[in-house]
Amino acid sequence: MTIFRTARGMRDFLPEGAKMMKYIEGKARRVAQLYGYKEIITPVVESYELLAAKAGEEVRSRMYAFKDLGGRKVALRPEFTASVARLVATTLRNEPKPLRLFCVGSLYRYDEPQKGRFREFWQSNYELMGSSKPEGDAEIIMLTNSLMKSVGLKNCVFKVGHVGVLRGILSQENVEEQVQNEIMQLMDKKQYEATLKLVEDAGTSKCLATLKKLMETKGSKVSQILKTMEQQVEGYERAVDAVGNLREILKLVSETGEKIDMIVEAGFARGLEYYTGMIFEVYVPEMDISLGGGGRYDRLIELFGGEPTPAVGVAHGIDRIMMAMQKQKTSLRIEEEKRVMIIPVKEELNREALKISRMLREAGIPVEIEVMGRKMSKALEDADRRNIDYAIIVGEKELKNGAVVIRNLRKREQKTVKIENIIETIKGNKL
Amino acid sequence: MTIFRTARGMRDFLPEGAKMMKYIEGKARRVAQLYGYKEIITPVVESYELLAAKAGEEVRSRMYAFKDLGGRKVALRPEFTASVARLVATTLRNEPKPLRLFCVGSLYRYDEPQKGRFREFWQSNYELMGSSKPEGDAEIIMLTNSLMKSVGLKNCVFKVGHVGVLRGILSQENVEEQVQNEIMQLMDKKQYEATLKLVEDAGTSKCLATLKKLMETKGSKVSQILKTMEQQVEGYERAVDAVGNLREILKLVSETGEKIDMIVEAGFARGLEYYTGMIFEVYVPEMDISLGGGGRYDRLIELFGGEPTPAVGVAHGIDRIMMAMQKQKTSLRIEEEKRVMIIPVKEELNREALKISRMLREAGIPVEIEVMGRKMSKALEDADRRNIDYAIIVGEKELKNGAVVIRNLRKREQKTVKIENIIETIKGNKL
Repeated sequence: MTIFRTARGMRDFLPEGAKMMKYIEGKARRVAQLYGYKEIITPVVESYELLAAKAGEEVRSRMYAFKDLGGRKVALRPEFTASVARLVATTLRNEPKPLRLFCVGSLYRYDEPQKGRFREFWQSNYELMGSSKPEGDAEIIMLTNSLMKSVGLKNCVFKVGHVGVLRGILSQENVEEQVQNEIMQLMDKKQYEATLKLVEDAGTSKCLATLKKLMETKGSKVSQILKTMEQQVEGYERAVDAVGNLREILKLVSETGEKIDMIVEAGFARGLEYYTGMIFEVYVPEMDISLGGGGRYDRLIELFGGEPTPAVGVAHGIDRIMMAMQKQKTSLRIEEEKRVMIIPVKEELNREALKISRMLREAGIPVEIEVMGRKMSKALEDADRRNIDYAIIVGEKELKNGAVVIRNLRKREQKTVKIENIIETIKGNKL
Repeated sequence: MTIFRTARGMRDFLPEGAKMMKYIEGKARRVAQLYGYKEIITPVVESYELLAAKAGEEVRSRMYAFKDLGGRKVALRPEFTASVARLVATTLRNEPKPLRLFCVGSLYRYDEPQKGRFREFWQSNYELMGSSKPEGDAEIIMLTNSLMKSVGLKNCVFKVGHVGVLRGILSQENVEEQVQNEIMQLMDKKQYEATLKLVEDAGTSKCLATLKKLMETKGSKVSQILKTMEQQVEGYERAVDAVGNLREILKLVSETGEKIDMIVEAGFARGLEYYTGMIFEVYVPEMDISLGGGGRYDRLIELFGGEPTPAVGVAHGIDRIMMAMQKQKTSLRIEEEKRVMIIPVKEELNREALKISRMLREAGIPVEIEVMGRKMSKALEDADRRNIDYAIIVGEKELKNGAVVIRNLRKREQKTVKIENIIETIKGNKL
């Protein structure tokens, strides 16, 4: 007999894990509401052409791509942004700006399975379309911080940079965009030597010297680092502007009074090619992979055939946040409901048990009924093992008086209660 | 420029639709809690072998199947039951029974797109493992009814049958299982002539006569129909038992006092081959496709390599329920929150606006901030169009007194309020 397993890189979430995933998803949805982001649902299967359009070689080569039965090349989405951009360039083309959109769901990348990386993973994704102002960038950072706080994570650190710094220098040095992309990708992978080699071939010695210095410029003293950066990029106008833009964004964030730990990193790059401005990632000390990341991409909607639309967005890894919560032993702030099990003393009383179960559920009390035809002692044992709070024992003698026995399985106490008083007894913790 | 579209048979849900989908999903999750079903999450991508094992030819040929980059044949799940069976046969093998499991998510079938049928669709799925008792079957029907009621659907009708009736007759006539499956599939497609042709070839004339009569036996007078069925299958012991089992299940349901409209249909069959007992589907008069369906499949877990485990389950089409709600013009019972927009009179006051937005969100009030750098009048116009409830106008003069202007955009009234009183004013509807 074949033993069936999950496909490689895929996983199940059992009740404890699934509860955490849905808890985080719920918090992400609440943050969306609090910041005015409307939820949309886009398909898991999209045309390959769409998903490949702006994905960058690395993501593109790791997509779950295949031909459907009609011979069309499709793929499982590796990220949300392409789908949202498609919508904003087509169906939502004429929506007034700003347009704030939220989505949450599963994504697929054919990476080598390793710690914290799976081939199916979940993200909450926020996109703010239409605003080129630093308030937009600040909002995306703030909502990320709100999500981390609302799930109870501690000691989060934001790593922040600005693509415009490096791109500004390289553009002014007339480095071709293709080469710029290669340089950014090498930077993202922290292959600094290879990066500098490429810069040496493509730019001036001034450019090389500047990049070398920038790569070493990082730290948590935000204004000091920004000042250093400004000095280092002197003469590269666009890079100077980029530093100024970053300063403005971080100032807005800090002036809200919210204490956020930041590390500014002048040489910070993110894998996706479409970023044009501020970029960031959020970490906890317990993990070396980011819990979320995003930034500004002002040219993307245009590239997908829409009107030129400035945009800034972020995606958070729901399963990564779960890992972080497990490492920090964060407890879920869910009010646990009292759970009830109804046990008829003999099978003929099942209909009474069903009737009572219906009454309790309509009053909002979770109820399990006995469906195994077990003797009462066995059923009680089982209820105990499942951490049920109350057993309602339906017996002939009590029924004649319109009553049942309610047993508090934690306290191991019981009393006879009229059927019309069951709800009050359980909801009011009167036993 | 390419115009990107959704892949054929796929669709987006815009904010209004997505809100309904999530509303129904939330109700399905609540029903799971009330009946003691624990949520699990299984992957969208499973091994082809698993999904094909018990799917039946029709579903199998319409799966999104492909080879992954490692050359393994995988597919997108066309239903949840195979994945749940995999878990129950492996990881959850030793869990005490009954085991109640719930899952919700997207499924994929390569059907010809048509009204109400898409290639990506959503289901809530409940499985009760370990109980062979009619109380289990009754529970599955009752929870389906609870879900339909909780989303506010009216005039639901349950179509109910029992696979054991036809199978009982055919087995006693020594019709091979393969032929039985073909007969059941033709019945499911309502190809009655072809069915009878097949029965004629495979069984006796008594068998043919019995099946002809059964095909015409259906109606809403439950006990009368059951009585007729019992007479029609006389002499076929297993079929007689099946009718008895169905009677017991429906009696338990009716004795809860819940009024459920039922149509018992003696010749009712469902596409999937794995059913062994009671089967049902739920409809609303406005639509000719079912909103959900399920039944008993006592041999399935065994077929997936697990211990013999009686089981009964149901899946509900979340997007179909949404369609039904739209047709019935059901309104969502969601308490709409007051929405606030904060507009600084000039850009230099943005930081004050951000500070206030943070304060309000921490108090649980949804806030949008101005991120377009627009003049106040433009921003107010936009807030109006978006149906924002309150605009908080941050002006220099009021700020000097630690105050802002709050405008009720519905009533078109406004007043000056101290910053520390904003929350109270909005939460208490004091304007």
